[in-house]
Amino acid sequence: MTSFSGLVVGRYGEIALKGKNQPRFRRQLRHNLAECLSRAGIEAQVQETGRRLHVRTDDPEAAAQALTRVFGLTSLSPAEPVPTDMAAIEGAALRQLQEDGMRPGDTIRVAARRAFKGFPLTSPEINRAVGEYLVGETGAGVDLSDQADHTVGVEVHEDHALVYARVIPGAGGLPVPMAGRVVVLMSAGLDSPVAAWMMMKRGCAVIPLHFAGDDEGTDRFRAICEVLQEWSQGWRIEPIIVSHREALEDVSRRLVDCQADRWTCLFCKRAMIAEAQAVARQHHAHGIVLGDSLGQVASQTLENIRVISSGAEYPIYRPLIGVDKVEVMALARKIGTYDLSAQSQPACPYLPDRPLTQASFDKFLALQEHLSGLASDET
Amino acid sequence: MTSFSGLVVGRYGEIALKGKNQPRFRRQLRHNLAECLSRAGIEAQVQETGRRLHVRTDDPEAAAQALTRVFGLTSLSPAEPVPTDMAAIEGAALRQLQEDGMRPGDTIRVAARRAFKGFPLTSPEINRAVGEYLVGETGAGVDLSDQADHTVGVEVHEDHALVYARVIPGAGGLPVPMAGRVVVLMSAGLDSPVAAWMMMKRGCAVIPLHFAGDDEGTDRFRAICEVLQEWSQGWRIEPIIVSHREALEDVSRRLVDCQADRWTCLFCKRAMIAEAQAVARQHHAHGIVLGDSLGQVASQTLENIRVISSGAEYPIYRPLIGVDKVEVMALARKIGTYDLSAQSQPACPYLPDRPLTQASFDKFLALQEHLSGLASDET
Repeated sequence: MTSFSGLVVGRYGEIALKGKNQPRFRRQLRHNLAECLSRAGIEAQVQETGRRLHVRTDDPEAAAQALTRVFGLTSLSPAEPVPTDMAAIEGAALRQLQEDGMRPGDTIRVAARRAFKGFPLTSPEINRAVGEYLVGETGAGVDLSDQADHTVGVEVHEDHALVYARVIPGAGGLPVPMAGRVVVLMSAGLDSPVAAWMMMKRGCAVIPLHFAGDDEGTDRFRAICEVLQEWSQGWRIEPIIVSHREALEDVSRRLVDCQADRWTCLFCKRAMIAEAQAVARQHHAHGIVLGDSLGQVASQTLENIRVISSGAEYPIYRPLIGVDKVEVMALARKIGTYDLSAQSQPACPYLPDRPLTQASFDKFLALQEHLSGLASDET
Repeated sequence: MTSFSGLVVGRYGEIALKGKNQPRFRRQLRHNLAECLSRAGIEAQVQETGRRLHVRTDDPEAAAQALTRVFGLTSLSPAEPVPTDMAAIEGAALRQLQEDGMRPGDTIRVAARRAFKGFPLTSPEINRAVGEYLVGETGAGVDLSDQADHTVGVEVHEDHALVYARVIPGAGGLPVPMAGRVVVLMSAGLDSPVAAWMMMKRGCAVIPLHFAGDDEGTDRFRAICEVLQEWSQGWRIEPIIVSHREALEDVSRRLVDCQADRWTCLFCKRAMIAEAQAVARQHHAHGIVLGDSLGQVASQTLENIRVISSGAEYPIYRPLIGVDKVEVMALARKIGTYDLSAQSQPACPYLPDRPLTQASFDKFLALQEHLSGLASDET
């Protein structure tokens, strides 16, 4: 035992499958856990034991809460360290069951692991003894399947034992920044921060790119990036802000000139993707991320997305494409961006009267050729 | 009242937001509900009343269960039709509360809507009267917020009233095939059917394209398509099957010839996407759908996805890109494809010893040029 009085057990899921990359994933996860705790001002020590992580700390409650924001952990259990003897283990098991909110009629089971083979009882013997003690004290029913209402975990080591019953869901996913970098087109709205978070969850280092209109939107965007940073141990999020006006004014004017202003939103999004690609090249990113959800607004149609994506050099990721608005809202609440996201954004100054909702791809190709002809005439 | 003895109330969410397209969405939804019930062998009649749908049928339980697979409905309530008088309404309210599994200590509220303005009590008066009756009969507490454990809905029409308490979650999303067509690369594995379902949920008509290896896999693929069909009212799913060997043997041989067989899986996926694009052109689809989840297997990296996607004419949708394996498994169970999906697929005969996991984009470009040079030499 170290000098810390408490401990949190952390479990990882998919990382265990990563074959020869496993050591790298595990090293990054340990690093991210340590960084998370350090940022939260919690003194702690992170160790691997077999296929679990032990976080030793004096404040296991606060540590477990903070660590729910580290991608790569599937679940966490604040544990009670006790001396290696059965009476101490049984007493802790009863306390942990109560901590887990046990109610009359609930079923229990005990899952012991004897890491110290010198302990006189085997794992099944520990299960039986602790189980009988708990049934005697509480009158609980026993359910040996994984359907039991409460599972009491017991780990027996040479100089101490660990007992826990609570299981707090972890963030899941893979450790940032193992997957590599992506550029996210991020507004101050609801969707794009959630899209960024989905990619972070799968291990991406995100580079948010914002097209600034008014100051309020830009402030919201910055605040949203700070919330996302809390989920991005292992990668410092550096927001990039460019002027919407500068990015768009040229193409908007040309579209108005040739009476094709209904196409403005489509060419605007294409201009944004072009800028994102320039950022990707500069920052060694491998893809562009958008917050599109199919059919959520009239412009997010398969037809429009085809026009918007056409000719892109980098893959365009749309992690919310199959997600309903109510699901995006629930995710935004979980992430912590919901209240920061503007519920209604100011009207875009370039928005045409009747934006196209189902753009024809052939007309797009013709218009694009026409516009590039105009552009080369000017030069 | 028609001759049917029972009724299901259906609610829709996002469709209500669709502005001038609303009538088209609602018409498609009504059509899909009717098709679903007809396929399930349930006689019924679908009507719109205000912002709700009424499904009249003799078997509201079976109808409600079947309708949980129609995209566009957010929730369903089997309702009890009674004569338009307070004693009948109160009796039904008590029965519906019991149907909803009311337990001691639960809180209730009543939400009445008086469609027939000739009824002597106003909606607030109905709420109060029915609420007092229920409190008297059950001793339940009242919670007028939407946090009440049970909400009893009452609709008063001229010739009947409807009473319900149960709320069954609907499938959400938008009615198929309102969003248009997409081609889905579909194996017999776990992910791609779930990816197809996510796009269907947002209103897509899916065209599954399968690259056939062994017969067992092809049979599984067909069975999976039949399960997906149950979620695809409004669109007949027609699977397309091509030979994996014919699609791949040429590029595989050339890669082996130039000692670049580590690139086989990447060029295989590119060949599949090329085939999917041919299908998309032929069937007027607007995009290609893949089951990729970032980092789930060693080959699904940002680097590899960039090589695989490069030069595609159609947008490539990856609705599972930010989804964990355990989440995909939970979705597959809900959809009904889990048990049909092969847990381990037979090894691909073209799989190289050490497939690339982080392909260099520059090397890809050079190799592609080299291969196209070889191809033109042969002709």
